[in-house]
Amino acid sequence: MSDPFLAMGQQVLDSQPFSVLLGARLAHFVRGDVELVVTLRADLMQQDGFVHGGVLSYAADNALTFAGGSALGQPVRTGGFTIHYVKPARGERLIARAHAVATGKRQAVCRCDIFAATGTEEYLCAVAQGTITAITPPATERAGS
Amino acid sequence: MSDPFLAMGQQVLDSQPFSVLLGARLAHFVRGDVELVVTLRADLMQQDGFVHGGVLSYAADNALTFAGGSALGQPVRTGGFTIHYVKPARGERLIARAHAVATGKRQAVCRCDIFAATGTEEYLCAVAQGTITAITPPATERAGS
Amino acid sequence: MSDPFLAMGQQVLDSQPFSVLLGARLAHFVRGDVELVVTLRADLMQQDGFVHGGVLSYAADNALTFAGGSALGQPVRTGGFTIHYVKPARGERLIARAHAVATGKRQAVCRCDIFAATGTEEYLCAVAQGTITAITPPATERAGS
Amino acid sequence: MSDPFLAMGQQVLDSQPFSVLLGARLAHFVRGDVELVVTLRADLMQQDGFVHGGVLSYAADNALTFAGGSALGQPVRTGGFTIHYVKPARGERLIARAHAVATGKRQAVCRCDIFAATGTEEYLCAVAQGTITAITPPATERAGS
Repeated sequence: MSDPFLAMGQQVLDSQPFSVLLGARLAHFVRGDVELVVTLRADLMQQDGFVHGGVLSYAADNALTFAGGSALGQPVRTGGFTIHYVKPARGERLIARAHAVATGKRQAVCRCDIFAATGTEEYLCAVAQGTITAITPPATERAGS
Repeated sequence: MSDPFLAMGQQVLDSQPFSVLLGARLAHFVRGDVELVVTLRADLMQQDGFVHGGVLSYAADNALTFAGGSALGQPVRTGGFTIHYVKPARGERLIARAHAVATGKRQAVCRCDIFAATGTEEYLCAVAQGTITAITPPATERAGS
Repeated sequence: MSDPFLAMGQQVLDSQPFSVLLGARLAHFVRGDVELVVTLRADLMQQDGFVHGGVLSYAADNALTFAGGSALGQPVRTGGFTIHYVKPARGERLIARAHAVATGKRQAVCRCDIFAATGTEEYLCAVAQGTITAITPPATERAGS
Repeated sequence: MSDPFLAMGQQVLDSQPFSVLLGARLAHFVRGDVELVVTLRADLMQQDGFVHGGVLSYAADNALTFAGGSALGQPVRTGGFTIHYVKPARGERLIARAHAVATGKRQAVCRCDIFAATGTEEYLCAVAQGTITAITPPATERAGS
């Protein structure tokens, strides 16, 4: 991985035990733009053989946070997000592409499209939109905490 | 587990490999009302020692679906949901309490509160709201697919 | 109107030309809790004789802002909200009841239930959830602007 | 207005008393894609001279519904939506551009960008995402009612 920004992002991801458990990795990462990939495996499914909604919402949460955090360029917290599932997800991997659509001094509003992919084929299975907020030091002034 | 409805719900949960991976269980389950518990452990965290947002969104997704599905009393799909994180989550377990606030013929709108608990102490760490939709047979008429 | 906090809230509402256009008034207002009422009339409807969704979303937006702003006790902006419509609204008036479910130093997460009422009868027609954020002085550091 | 689809859409809009009250018109309308314009005037503002959030949420609600309804090609109801405000809106007019990002047999998931415009200049002031659902006859099987 010769891209230092991508390598730095992957390092952050690798420091999240839950992202390691799910096997998430970054395929692309620039300021305000990220592509997060989860290789699909049996234990990420629900009872019907499709990817569990919780895996899609994990991917949305994390991709939105990377997009917004990098757009703001400072420590952030995820305020929240909305996800709509549009098709059951099945395939080799999940791809979450998020970008910051509006970046202020302290908040970024981001959108994310989540695709299920097999080989070079992919289809949209969920769309999300959320807010990422800068954490103001000192920690005692942190929003929402 | 002598409550047959609760036992049936736990069986559904146990048939979801991702819920098994996260160790989710139902503590309470009646029509339109559910309490889902995730015992916290190191691999559910993010880099700062707090529970990963993806675990909270998993709990919201699944609790909303159980609340809405049981309220509707028929096969369902989760349309989507909104989650707002209100406090970083840390403790022994996560408790997601969801209930159906409005149930129509084919759709239930549900809310969920997510608490972090240690012993008998708990505090609110996220709130969610979403829609659960009945799947109309035949499968080819399924909404959003 | 002998309640000074309620009178102050109504004064703020009266200073919003759009709220005057819609005829909104406060029926109840304490810190973190508000009841906003819109008397229904022909020009608030859509083509089918039910209240336009835009009137319900106006009521949600404003009630959430009053609940969150009063909970925070400082100048605020509305970050955004989610609304789910659960029943077509018809009757004499719309009642939006909002309260702050979690209040931090700089952000309040609020919920709102919107009812359609005739006489003493009312039924739930929409539910909403949103975030209200304190505006940090100086204005140039304002989040999202 | 020589475009028959646009003329038909404007006719629907003109049959909504609330849209007439707000002076909304369609500037563009094809299946799954709409541009709705509201000319700004003093009574659409809040106390600070910016457009009231309720006007932006009205525009989002209606644009999402036109985008989703035309994509589905059948009678619909709006399930709900999420709106994030990104900049205070001020100018000559509000432009809401919505499109259906995923259309199933019975549900469309749509996104909407709302701009404030003066002359040929415009800037993004809010983003929204929502679901539009087909109404199944007979009316007694209507979702959510």
